[in-house]
Amino acid sequence: MRATMIYAPGDIRVENLPDPKIVNSTDAVIRTVAACVCGSDLWDYRGINPVTEPHPIGHEYVGIVEEVGGDVSTVRPGQFVIGSFFASDNTCPICRAGYHTSCPHREFVGGCQAEYVRIPLADGTLVATPEQPAEDLIPSLLTLSDVMGTGWYAAKAAEVGPGSTAVVVGDGAVGLSGVIAAKELGAERIIAMSRHESRQKLALEFGATDIVTERGEEGIARVKELTGGIGADSVLECVGTPESMRQALLSTRPGGNVGFVGVPHGVAIDGEQLFFSHVGLRGGPAPVRGYLPDLIQRVFDGRIDPGKVFDLTLPLDEVAEGYKAMDERRAIKALLRP
Amino acid sequence: MRATMIYAPGDIRVENLPDPKIVNSTDAVIRTVAACVCGSDLWDYRGINPVTEPHPIGHEYVGIVEEVGGDVSTVRPGQFVIGSFFASDNTCPICRAGYHTSCPHREFVGGCQAEYVRIPLADGTLVATPEQPAEDLIPSLLTLSDVMGTGWYAAKAAEVGPGSTAVVVGDGAVGLSGVIAAKELGAERIIAMSRHESRQKLALEFGATDIVTERGEEGIARVKELTGGIGADSVLECVGTPESMRQALLSTRPGGNVGFVGVPHGVAIDGEQLFFSHVGLRGGPAPVRGYLPDLIQRVFDGRIDPGKVFDLTLPLDEVAEGYKAMDERRAIKALLRP
Repeated sequence: MRATMIYAPGDIRVENLPDPKIVNSTDAVIRTVAACVCGSDLWDYRGINPVTEPHPIGHEYVGIVEEVGGDVSTVRPGQFVIGSFFASDNTCPICRAGYHTSCPHREFVGGCQAEYVRIPLADGTLVATPEQPAEDLIPSLLTLSDVMGTGWYAAKAAEVGPGSTAVVVGDGAVGLSGVIAAKELGAERIIAMSRHESRQKLALEFGATDIVTERGEEGIARVKELTGGIGADSVLECVGTPESMRQALLSTRPGGNVGFVGVPHGVAIDGEQLFFSHVGLRGGPAPVRGYLPDLIQRVFDGRIDPGKVFDLTLPLDEVAEGYKAMDERRAIKALLRP
Repeated sequence: MRATMIYAPGDIRVENLPDPKIVNSTDAVIRTVAACVCGSDLWDYRGINPVTEPHPIGHEYVGIVEEVGGDVSTVRPGQFVIGSFFASDNTCPICRAGYHTSCPHREFVGGCQAEYVRIPLADGTLVATPEQPAEDLIPSLLTLSDVMGTGWYAAKAAEVGPGSTAVVVGDGAVGLSGVIAAKELGAERIIAMSRHESRQKLALEFGATDIVTERGEEGIARVKELTGGIGADSVLECVGTPESMRQALLSTRPGGNVGFVGVPHGVAIDGEQLFFSHVGLRGGPAPVRGYLPDLIQRVFDGRIDPGKVFDLTLPLDEVAEGYKAMDERRAIKALLRP
């Protein structure tokens, strides 16, 4: 099969790899209908995470089940399925508590920018759509595999609720998905922090009520100004840098919450400052598996259209251009069709 | 009046100071019926917080209203009242959200180890008991001014709920109050971390189901062992050191919560570790004002008896011995009768 490999920072290639096979009786193999490039793939592409040897890359996927192992009972060949970037058993106490990405049996689903993918723990990981989706739903369904689920988790972790005020730090695909999530969860005011015109436009289309272009002290001051001087109830941190975390923590009102989904790079939180802020903080790799049934329904119902975050579609063979365009911020997110 | 002054680490004296007067029309002056020494007073006593000049000390009090300013309407002379260690207006959005100790009009109520105390923002700060309390209720009512309210907040911030498993890190008066709070909020299993026999006994009396004497890696392993290998739903951090925070964070299951009420001293939290733990974190000076009506009722109903944390009662003139006994861990908490 054709599959994407990263050889080194900036070096993305499509190669022929052996087709994946069923290894465990709980596996499924899917034929990828669509995959994409994630902001977190760029950590490798930019050399911020070390790339010690060439390896397959990509962790977002939708596809058609090709084959299942003998112990798989909830999905069957021919079904259109979506799964999380972490396989999970969906039955242990941690999964039942809604934290599938901390499942003790979790396994990273890698190498998804490819024609076929082996999915471990298929029963716990994959969710079939109610029917074969129309072509125009595929981008939105693909986002449920990571970014839309991650934006949803950011909003849940930040405890967005009816009538609340939310700030979204970060205008990448996750941040934009966070705007959708905040809107769906009932936020009355949604402040998107963005200085890119096309992203501002999408944020407004997704439900943002205010755009803040300032950063640092000025950004914090502007959010305070928009929130009666006290800060927002909920802040979604969708970047992962010390600056964005500071922006998030200082934009939250006492007793409010920060949900942080940008993988932290070099972030340290001062205990005393956090204490006196009264801000609640929860982050982590989003347990998107738990949200799939609900979010699939919202996509099928036409309530949400997160697929709009894809502003570039490429055949798999041109995946390297997808990385380049995202790295240069020419594209928000690149969809790949194998 | 007679009042306690701290001159330097280890140097506590009782002196004659001018009686406090009404300064603002929103003030009240109370005659102190009981006061006490707080674990946080020991930060000064031990020289961990600098004592730059002699000053009055103490921030926990119950008393009888002597006089009120012209704009005070909810309490009147002769009433028995309890208040928080922070005055607050109880009407602003932050107070209404339940975070009185972040009220923009907050004012620290200091110098309470004294015969009389001026209470700012009396309407927002003081709560009168339904009737004059019997003598034996006074210790418990006094704890509502800080430690019991702080234990309550720790349990709320850690999201203790019916059927949950809670760990309490710290066996001081706040930790022991946290055991009471966890029990009242419905925890089914309450693991108290303590290596002092008298405190273990009180923890069990207050509702602890398990005692863990180990600390560090062994303490974490023991909690895991008691919680099916995954950690506790809720952990109450009631100390404030890097070691106790580590103990708390690593004793919590993914998706669980740490409520931290020990004022952090030298605590830094690694963003990446917190991220991958999926643990939620909230701390701060406890908004005890909000809990007063409920907790006063629980004391009057005989449901809770947090006054048992006082194992030393002294006349005000012997306050220095109270500090010494607590510093040497001969006493859990010293009650003072002016």
